[in-house]
Amino acid sequence: MKRMAVFTSGGDAPGMNACIRAVVRSATYHNVEVFGVMRGYEGMIRGRLHRMESSAVSNTIQKGGTILKSARSSEFKTHEGRKKAYQQLRHFDIEGLVAIGGDGTFTAAKVFHEEFGLPIIGCPGTIDNDIYGTDYTIGYDTAVNTALEAIDKIRDTADSHNRVFFIEVMGRDSGYIAVQSGIGGGAEIIVSPENSNTTEDIINALRKGKLHHKASAIVLVAEGEVMGNATKLAAEVQAATEGLDIRVTTLGHIQRGGSPTASDRILASRTGVGAVEGLLNGKTSVMAGIQNNHLVYTPFDEAINKKKPINQELLRMVKILSI
Amino acid sequence: MKRMAVFTSGGDAPGMNACIRAVVRSATYHNVEVFGVMRGYEGMIRGRLHRMESSAVSNTIQKGGTILKSARSSEFKTHEGRKKAYQQLRHFDIEGLVAIGGDGTFTAAKVFHEEFGLPIIGCPGTIDNDIYGTDYTIGYDTAVNTALEAIDKIRDTADSHNRVFFIEVMGRDSGYIAVQSGIGGGAEIIVSPENSNTTEDIINALRKGKLHHKASAIVLVAEGEVMGNATKLAAEVQAATEGLDIRVTTLGHIQRGGSPTASDRILASRTGVGAVEGLLNGKTSVMAGIQNNHLVYTPFDEAINKKKPINQELLRMVKILSI
Amino acid sequence: MKRMAVFTSGGDAPGMNACIRAVVRSATYHNVEVFGVMRGYEGMIRGRLHRMESSAVSNTIQKGGTILKSARSSEFKTHEGRKKAYQQLRHFDIEGLVAIGGDGTFTAAKVFHEEFGLPIIGCPGTIDNDIYGTDYTIGYDTAVNTALEAIDKIRDTADSHNRVFFIEVMGRDSGYIAVQSGIGGGAEIIVSPENSNTTEDIINALRKGKLHHKASAIVLVAEGEVMGNATKLAAEVQAATEGLDIRVTTLGHIQRGGSPTASDRILASRTGVGAVEGLLNGKTSVMAGIQNNHLVYTPFDEAINKKKPINQELLRMVKILSI
Amino acid sequence: MKRMAVFTSGGDAPGMNACIRAVVRSATYHNVEVFGVMRGYEGMIRGRLHRMESSAVSNTIQKGGTILKSARSSEFKTHEGRKKAYQQLRHFDIEGLVAIGGDGTFTAAKVFHEEFGLPIIGCPGTIDNDIYGTDYTIGYDTAVNTALEAIDKIRDTADSHNRVFFIEVMGRDSGYIAVQSGIGGGAEIIVSPENSNTTEDIINALRKGKLHHKASAIVLVAEGEVMGNATKLAAEVQAATEGLDIRVTTLGHIQRGGSPTASDRILASRTGVGAVEGLLNGKTSVMAGIQNNHLVYTPFDEAINKKKPINQELLRMVKILSI
Repeated sequence: MKRMAVFTSGGDAPGMNACIRAVVRSATYHNVEVFGVMRGYEGMIRGRLHRMESSAVSNTIQKGGTILKSARSSEFKTHEGRKKAYQQLRHFDIEGLVAIGGDGTFTAAKVFHEEFGLPIIGCPGTIDNDIYGTDYTIGYDTAVNTALEAIDKIRDTADSHNRVFFIEVMGRDSGYIAVQSGIGGGAEIIVSPENSNTTEDIINALRKGKLHHKASAIVLVAEGEVMGNATKLAAEVQAATEGLDIRVTTLGHIQRGGSPTASDRILASRTGVGAVEGLLNGKTSVMAGIQNNHLVYTPFDEAINKKKPINQELLRMVKILSI
Repeated sequence: MKRMAVFTSGGDAPGMNACIRAVVRSATYHNVEVFGVMRGYEGMIRGRLHRMESSAVSNTIQKGGTILKSARSSEFKTHEGRKKAYQQLRHFDIEGLVAIGGDGTFTAAKVFHEEFGLPIIGCPGTIDNDIYGTDYTIGYDTAVNTALEAIDKIRDTADSHNRVFFIEVMGRDSGYIAVQSGIGGGAEIIVSPENSNTTEDIINALRKGKLHHKASAIVLVAEGEVMGNATKLAAEVQAATEGLDIRVTTLGHIQRGGSPTASDRILASRTGVGAVEGLLNGKTSVMAGIQNNHLVYTPFDEAINKKKPINQELLRMVKILSI
Repeated sequence: MKRMAVFTSGGDAPGMNACIRAVVRSATYHNVEVFGVMRGYEGMIRGRLHRMESSAVSNTIQKGGTILKSARSSEFKTHEGRKKAYQQLRHFDIEGLVAIGGDGTFTAAKVFHEEFGLPIIGCPGTIDNDIYGTDYTIGYDTAVNTALEAIDKIRDTADSHNRVFFIEVMGRDSGYIAVQSGIGGGAEIIVSPENSNTTEDIINALRKGKLHHKASAIVLVAEGEVMGNATKLAAEVQAATEGLDIRVTTLGHIQRGGSPTASDRILASRTGVGAVEGLLNGKTSVMAGIQNNHLVYTPFDEAINKKKPINQELLRMVKILSI
Repeated sequence: MKRMAVFTSGGDAPGMNACIRAVVRSATYHNVEVFGVMRGYEGMIRGRLHRMESSAVSNTIQKGGTILKSARSSEFKTHEGRKKAYQQLRHFDIEGLVAIGGDGTFTAAKVFHEEFGLPIIGCPGTIDNDIYGTDYTIGYDTAVNTALEAIDKIRDTADSHNRVFFIEVMGRDSGYIAVQSGIGGGAEIIVSPENSNTTEDIINALRKGKLHHKASAIVLVAEGEVMGNATKLAAEVQAATEGLDIRVTTLGHIQRGGSPTASDRILASRTGVGAVEGLLNGKTSVMAGIQNNHLVYTPFDEAINKKKPINQELLRMVKILSI
């Protein structure tokens, strides 16, 4: 392989730049030329590729966002669009692709590979941590710590006013961020898709806290929660209780940004190197992930479709620690 | 004076603990005993006072929130309530009061002093910076930096997706936080009570940015803005434009918490010492503030009623710097 | 078991308070009374135990250091001293112990258990990550991220002046912090006990960087490095090269402090709960650790004596990524 | 004026990029072309100038260091060198200069202006805050907050072990950083050029703390302190006392880096705009500073030679607050 290309797609995540850097540097190390594709599949269709030397990624490991940018592409969802993208890659003599993104990215990559045969390996870049085949995804640890810092700040004001705060964190349909930042933040109760907490459970937890003379409380809500979002839940709890001073905060997009943590930089670096070396070793249509501290390649099919369950032990701990 | 009491009231602000510490330490230094009143005027009515030695404030200078807690008190708004409070203070032999809070706190303090004659000095504790008689209020610098960090993070994701973000910051009816964090965060346009930006102005600013090939933009909105909040504004702009990918984030209560910055700790320390030494020098019904790096006592009347204008030079700069 | 005690010993580490909290809360949850021992083995000998209710650990999960304090005890190294300590524990009817610390702590705990039979379980609290039986130790992730933030800051100034910085990080005789923060910080070369980099290797790496037009460079040095510390190394490199503007920074004790990261809070919480439930299930003389996301009990003997090797893959990556 | 150039010189400081950005944007706003000079006076001699459009400074306001880099130039100290520099500027048709740096930078600028008559205005960029004519210098607030975060972390470990820490901060021959971060960090004693604390004073302060049952203490030392640096002082105190567990940490270069605080970004923006508009209004050989929240131009002569005294009130407060 003489040339490969790398791109980011889907929601941006801290550590994507560290991953791009690892792809560029490890390809260069193995004497492979690297091209960066701007704006994901959309840019691929438009032929927005440029050569990336080792120095192009200097001073990027610590940066949030993605220097290659990301975009949605409805055109890539059509065979016609994908064909254009393939022709552009051919035009640049690209022989392999590294796709940094989440399951939407990998689903498209899988189809693209099936249709045109171009080798392609994915790196798990999403703050949601909802991808099978890797213990953690790039950006997840940073997002959790960003949420945690926000929770710590809100705890200051909750305590000062004896308030109950409902805090909504990101995570699409998975409660990873909620559970991790909730335990880390000492939340009294966590509402996530993975547990079956009802409004009644929340009310009971808050009442129990009152009995234990807790002046304030944090209720952590995963945005994808089927019961409804934090604002709706808070209104229900407010209606059913008396004398609680309830406030709601939705953390929002701050969770996507910021300089990546050490863990995210290293995960990004390892999977980036793993993707390049995987391509050089003839692998394709797989995702490079880290499991139990080892590099593991998982077929896109499994990465997309298999469910990565939340550690039940963590859910049990929430009850114990909020006593 | 042998004994004084200190309390916090109104919305909590980072640095309030540094101020309490300064009151306790400087009173102790001057051989005056200090009592802390829990939960502001409410706790005063209930007689929730406790003796604070120098060690009671060890390791608090860096803490967000207020260790004396804060609360609303409807009872203190009645003469009956204030009388109860006064009797409690008499019971504890309190000869002077330090009130840490904003204009609501000072308004009540002024009335209380007029009715019962107890000497009382205020320290400006509010993130909003909307108090006359002090260049800055305790908590403002921290809130601005917290907002700025959030804006920096959101800029990462705005840039990665070529998006326009509307970010709403706190500030009640004043645009101090918006202007300071907006300039610091490189916002393309700032919507605050102090300028007359219309929806049309926002649209024009965004269009001008497009012309200058700016891929993303930040519109910073002060929560008290008369035009309506960030969500409403964003909807109007979205309706009137095409092709803009607009998102909204309300920073919310994270702006109230967190460890205070150096500036806030020092402002809190100086005004805390100033309040104690002011009481010892026979001053009353004034606020201790810092103007041009000097300690200044301003009558409550002025502190509450006079308007502190925003530096027009800063508003002019927004236009220059977002070119 | 009706009563247990918990203490911290050895160098303090961020997350120790989260671990104490987990011990207190989980014991309370299981209807066991908890006593905190102040200042480790030293306080145990002096009988400095106090009852800890659930509320005693409110608002501690985010705090650096240890609320139970730590101290060296030469007296506990004698049988006489340990006997006094045992009598004190008997006096308080303590039936089990949770020891939070590193290998020195566990070595003493093992002897203490052998002599007096009191059940004792350890939690791995040290920033050095040099303990077998757990993937990570409490405080390590925080220390790495603190070092990383410092490296990011130093990179700013190194780049601005085209300088070479030698940065010394903690880690006693292990290079975990150096390798993790070095990869995360994009160091050009890492000098740790686990690799065999010579002064010549450093010079070659810096020369190679010059060839690749790198203006600045970071050389990361683990403090326990056999070749000598950062200052000595820097002097050798300076003597052997010309025209390099070399500076040295020793990060020092900032690496021990600070609010723990999410990972450290969760690791601390899980091992704290694991220690308590281990004691209740009859285990003793073991350490509660987390391996591959599962709670694992490792005999003190192994935890102390077995070597936990650094992932060689990470050392290989340093060369690839600094190209 | 049709064209101006901007450069950074001397030690780098957080906010220099925000200042460069303000120069580029405000010049562009006033239809003046801007060139950036790489590596200060050294690059000026070598003719390393490049055109900077508005977009060249996008996404730089939050960055530490200086994108124009800094360097020492012995050649510029000669008339011959300055003549070369002037010819280069002539070659690029530069009609005015903005110099961002400290007193060394301004001294050279003053001579350069006197010899060749090219208009030149300075912006105060140095973390030391030792420049007359501006209340604060660009980078000072960030350096103080960086030092403060480090002190907060060290306090964690000092408290956990009942230790005394000597912490050395930057500041060349001025104690601004030491006093500000010392008060903010709750230091027990501050040793700076502006006070006359002796070793005996330190020992007395530590003894007094012991009497007040303070378990730990922070002694903050300004690097330029005439008595000797932190390590030497600590050794003297250790020799003269008994039973104190004393440690030393030198914060070093981390104080120069990092993302600038809001205050520094705004100070940098205001003085950058002020420098450009000053040049357009015919001013020269002055520094643009902010005093009492107003833009003020101070002749280089005064900025360099006049002494800006430390607020004595702050030194008095250290004693009160450490009681």
